Amino acid sequence: MKVVVLGAGAMGTAFTTPAADAGHTVCLVGTHLDGDIIEELHESRVHPRLKTRIHDAVQPFPIAGLHEAMQNADLVVLGVNSHGVAWAADVLADVLSPDVPVVMLTKGLHGDGHALHILPAFFRERLPPRLRDVTVMAVGGPCIAGELAVRRHSCVMLGGNNPSQLRALAAALRTPYYHVWTTTDLVGLEVCVALKNLYALAVGLALGWLERDGLADNGAHMHNPAAAIFAQGLYEMAYLVQWMGGDVRSVHALPGAGDLYVTCQGGRNSRMGRLLGLGIPYSQARAEHMPNESVEGAMLAEAIGDTVRALVRTGTLDARCLPLMLAILDVVCNSAPANIPWDAFFAA
Amino acid sequence: MKVVVLGAGAMGTAFTTPAADAGHTVCLVGTHLDGDIIEELHESRVHPRLKTRIHDAVQPFPIAGLHEAMQNADLVVLGVNSHGVAWAADVLADVLSPDVPVVMLTKGLHGDGHALHILPAFFRERLPPRLRDVTVMAVGGPCIAGELAVRRHSCVMLGGNNPSQLRALAAALRTPYYHVWTTTDLVGLEVCVALKNLYALAVGLALGWLERDGLADNGAHMHNPAAAIFAQGLYEMAYLVQWMGGDVRSVHALPGAGDLYVTCQGGRNSRMGRLLGLGIPYSQARAEHMPNESVEGAMLAEAIGDTVRALVRTGTLDARCLPLMLAILDVVCNSAPANIPWDAFFAA
Repeated sequence: MKVVVLGAGAMGTAFTTPAADAGHTVCLVGTHLDGDIIEELHESRVHPRLKTRIHDAVQPFPIAGLHEAMQNADLVVLGVNSHGVAWAADVLADVLSPDVPVVMLTKGLHGDGHALHILPAFFRERLPPRLRDVTVMAVGGPCIAGELAVRRHSCVMLGGNNPSQLRALAAALRTPYYHVWTTTDLVGLEVCVALKNLYALAVGLALGWLERDGLADNGAHMHNPAAAIFAQGLYEMAYLVQWMGGDVRSVHALPGAGDLYVTCQGGRNSRMGRLLGLGIPYSQARAEHMPNESVEGAMLAEAIGDTVRALVRTGTLDARCLPLMLAILDVVCNSAPANIPWDAFFAA
Repeated sequence: MKVVVLGAGAMGTAFTTPAADAGHTVCLVGTHLDGDIIEELHESRVHPRLKTRIHDAVQPFPIAGLHEAMQNADLVVLGVNSHGVAWAADVLADVLSPDVPVVMLTKGLHGDGHALHILPAFFRERLPPRLRDVTVMAVGGPCIAGELAVRRHSCVMLGGNNPSQLRALAAALRTPYYHVWTTTDLVGLEVCVALKNLYALAVGLALGWLERDGLADNGAHMHNPAAAIFAQGLYEMAYLVQWMGGDVRSVHALPGAGDLYVTCQGGRNSRMGRLLGLGIPYSQARAEHMPNESVEGAMLAEAIGDTVRALVRTGTLDARCLPLMLAILDVVCNSAPANIPWDAFFAA
């Protein structure tokens, strides 16, 4: 296959490693924000954030080369961040063939004030009419880009609507270290992998609390509170997956439990959680400590905050089932103090 | 209430803190193996493993004082380890009143060669006929003893059969930091909290792999494989909970996700996992590195290994749903190499 990856950030670029190892021709096309990365890849072939060489078979392109890269493409992979999905649909509008499937690595949910939408649906809606039947699939699961890029065992789920197409694509992408399962529960997959960023941010609060209070005299950490938040996160995920029409089994598998676990092992969501746990309001934490970083958990809160609150107001969503999410939305959207409503957990 | 805790290990002793803070009279009775601990508590009131003072209202007793401690007891709490359950039933046989409920902190499963049993059932069976109607409840959830002892926020689940009794007891045990929910899914609770030890040991393998292989040149850790094992652990837990007649919702709440998460943050199961991940066979790891330590995940494997294999042979349990458990049973019971059957994950 000829695989075109759009977006040369950490995840898009990391995906080129198994794709090239699986024997495919891979074009990596940077977005308009990835110019420096593509230049660096042309010069040294080392990705500045992944800090590792890309596969010899990967051809980097600046965004101006998108048209050339897309010639005879068999598969398009979206590696943009959640803010870039509409942009990606727009730039692909003229160069994508209706018979070429798209796989999204991007994670997030879109709130339009009235309803929540998974990104594959949002992306498809944004495409021009001639592309409305394009196949859109998604990859999710516990996969830190820097580990995939150096071929650590990584287990992911490919979700979509057509089982035989999913099976064929999964088979084409597998390598001895990149383990790919398939699921037709695209909704469950996408809800889990989006929400995990928000709940990982919440688990990260405990890092700040520990730093603020210190180890106890007996050396005790702050793992009990972190674990309760972790569990409540999965509990709310299960509620929302079912509410969105997904399958709860995605929650206790790679998309939910696996991806939330890996996201709690560090990274930008945890770092933001730590700052909030230290008592720094979100607006200040963002402006002073992480001004130019994509904190996907906070981006999700901003993307769905108004919609979730509107759905709660009308009783469409049950607030009793989402106390942790509502607390985090308040922290991010209103810079409220990071208080955890422990006794509202595990209700309803 | 007068609360008698039997077993002065870390968890039994830690439980005395919220019990005393909640205003109860608490007697802490050491087992025949806890003599040194009780002596130390009499002298300094500092528990040697928790490394913290016990509450002023807690009265320590050696096992010889069990009869005295049990006078007018309203609640008995079992803090023995999984090997001590039969012993506890035997010593309580003469001193327990049939109207005094028992709460088990002990975690494990009992395999008798033909079936798996949760410990509350095993404990009750072992009691003399006059006590067969005693109420047996259990507490589970993410609760590291050393953190509870210093009053970190800890969220647990009290499981049993009688909802009103559960609600009353939970209300009597709650403190501002000890958050107690109730569930009538005693089977789901007990299966989750037992299995989490075995799966935490499996997640710990990644620590050994990382030590063996080192950080990658780009600084990459070994979180992707650990997270996939974590997810497969919950996936198998969900299968076994349902197979045992429990409620799958316990898996994505405190007993499953929460307790597995906290158990992966260190402790003896993780340390044993690390040794096995380094390539040391179990028998050697045990003999040379952890000879006198209770590794609950390994104890569980030994307790249920033969039974699980017998149930798989007869097709009663589906081997395709338990590839990780079967691998770990082989590692512990047969000192087999710790190979992970990645591609058998998430089947069936």
